[in-house]
Amino acid sequence: MYPDPMSITRVASLGAGPIGGGWAAHFLARGYDVTAYIHAPEERFALMSVIETGWTSLTALGLAEGASLDRLRITSDLSDAVDGAGFIQESAPERLEIKQALYARLGEIVPPNVVIGSSTSGMTMTDIAATCPTPERCVIGHPFNPPYLLPLVEIIGGKQTDPAAVAWAAAFYEHAGKAPLVMKKEIPGFVATRLQEALWREALHMVANGEATPEDIDIALKNGPAPRMVVQGQCMAFHVACGAGGMATNLDQFGPALKWPWTRLEAPELTQKLRDRMVEGCNAMAGDRHFEDMAAERDRKIVAVLKALRDA
Amino acid sequence: MYPDPMSITRVASLGAGPIGGGWAAHFLARGYDVTAYIHAPEERFALMSVIETGWTSLTALGLAEGASLDRLRITSDLSDAVDGAGFIQESAPERLEIKQALYARLGEIVPPNVVIGSSTSGMTMTDIAATCPTPERCVIGHPFNPPYLLPLVEIIGGKQTDPAAVAWAAAFYEHAGKAPLVMKKEIPGFVATRLQEALWREALHMVANGEATPEDIDIALKNGPAPRMVVQGQCMAFHVACGAGGMATNLDQFGPALKWPWTRLEAPELTQKLRDRMVEGCNAMAGDRHFEDMAAERDRKIVAVLKALRDA
Repeated sequence: MYPDPMSITRVASLGAGPIGGGWAAHFLARGYDVTAYIHAPEERFALMSVIETGWTSLTALGLAEGASLDRLRITSDLSDAVDGAGFIQESAPERLEIKQALYARLGEIVPPNVVIGSSTSGMTMTDIAATCPTPERCVIGHPFNPPYLLPLVEIIGGKQTDPAAVAWAAAFYEHAGKAPLVMKKEIPGFVATRLQEALWREALHMVANGEATPEDIDIALKNGPAPRMVVQGQCMAFHVACGAGGMATNLDQFGPALKWPWTRLEAPELTQKLRDRMVEGCNAMAGDRHFEDMAAERDRKIVAVLKALRDA
Repeated sequence: MYPDPMSITRVASLGAGPIGGGWAAHFLARGYDVTAYIHAPEERFALMSVIETGWTSLTALGLAEGASLDRLRITSDLSDAVDGAGFIQESAPERLEIKQALYARLGEIVPPNVVIGSSTSGMTMTDIAATCPTPERCVIGHPFNPPYLLPLVEIIGGKQTDPAAVAWAAAFYEHAGKAPLVMKKEIPGFVATRLQEALWREALHMVANGEATPEDIDIALKNGPAPRMVVQGQCMAFHVACGAGGMATNLDQFGPALKWPWTRLEAPELTQKLRDRMVEGCNAMAGDRHFEDMAAERDRKIVAVLKALRDA
């Protein structure tokens, strides 16, 4: 029913803000024709400002063959914006009534085999598409700011979404140079924002208690967890740091630390099931690689990151 | 009373594990003479393995003039190890009775104007130096793993520590190429580990609830928050992302989000005092820089990190 994700040549990006503009810049850099929809003609300047800012970075990262700002068309006519587009990325304001009205209309004017992805960070597609006549092809496609630089896109459908549309969106985003993450459940904040929010709330606690200043928080993050986290996520960081024993050793040894007051966040019970999921998940990621090779790869990449930061 | 931190030429690193060995490698790479203390002669092989692993990365990052593995001496005689050292980095096993016995002895054999830093991640110097005859020069100097690569060192004294020893340690670590963070209060987990632990517990909740796999967690972190966090800590990331309004706009606009179930962690009350601390802290970090310049610098550095990762 849906076309081959690799056959798409035109994307419509709806929204003139940093997210809509960031998406437009990204798709242009990957060699797509892009139609950008702005709500009012006077938003053109703001949109172009975001796209041009993003373009500097995207050019430095390397443009796809044929990529050009000349392949951008801007319109404030919604029907015109979606005409001929093989994918719609919606980045309208984060107000449910605005999104619902937009999806009610999109559901009528966009051919039913065209997938629509929403950049929302706080709503579910179940709610957004509540009054959309064709909710089955509507998915969340949530980027991380700035969307022209950070690869993550979190994807999930609503209760009425066709699983094939979710799979299509993941394949399309990946082909378009993103790192798609198909979520298992509709949860508030999705995965990345939840992790970031946990960290953020602990940071606020520390500032509130006079235990750290905002500068302390940032020094700690930039010089401690972050250079490793960009190379290894927290699961693989612990898995590899524990040597041959991996995540199993980590949980068996540091499991009791989950009861320690090392954050204001309450940890879950470390059940056998949770332990198994963590261990099996890390073993699957490691595959055949020996921990020493993974540690060496980690170090090599951290060195590259530190050198890049020093030279930038 | 304490010597000029820049005059130190020899460091004693106590401990043969990944932390002790990592510190030895770091100090060697910065051009120090290093005496490494190992508890038993047969630990020599393990220690050398860690140092040689670290040396590969340190060489790639660039060694200080005169830095050489030939300037390492290994001994299992504690008095011999500390003899002539201008700073002691202690990385003994994380058991209080072991640390206390060690500090009782170090307190006698190390001249009182030599600062001793402990790598402990979980104990306070108040406890560690409880039976040390010279606790005033004993501080926590907690690295982040791997200590030969990650710059952060969290520093704090115990109740009996001389503030001058804390200041000395910060100056010494900075001169030795580290990013020192002098903490305001003795809190469990210090700053960086608390932030990481909050994130980690939220990750475990998501895995326990079937909302994400360990691989999902790692994909989300590596492609979302991490490439930005290595460039901007979370405070400045939000400050700059909110444009001219900065952190004040962030808190006023997203303050209500602190009540949303975006993590299992309970946020603190967003009082006027907390708001002021956050805003003033971010303004101080920003200084005279315009947010657009900071955003451009962020983008330039993220590009460098992404390119470095791609090429590594």
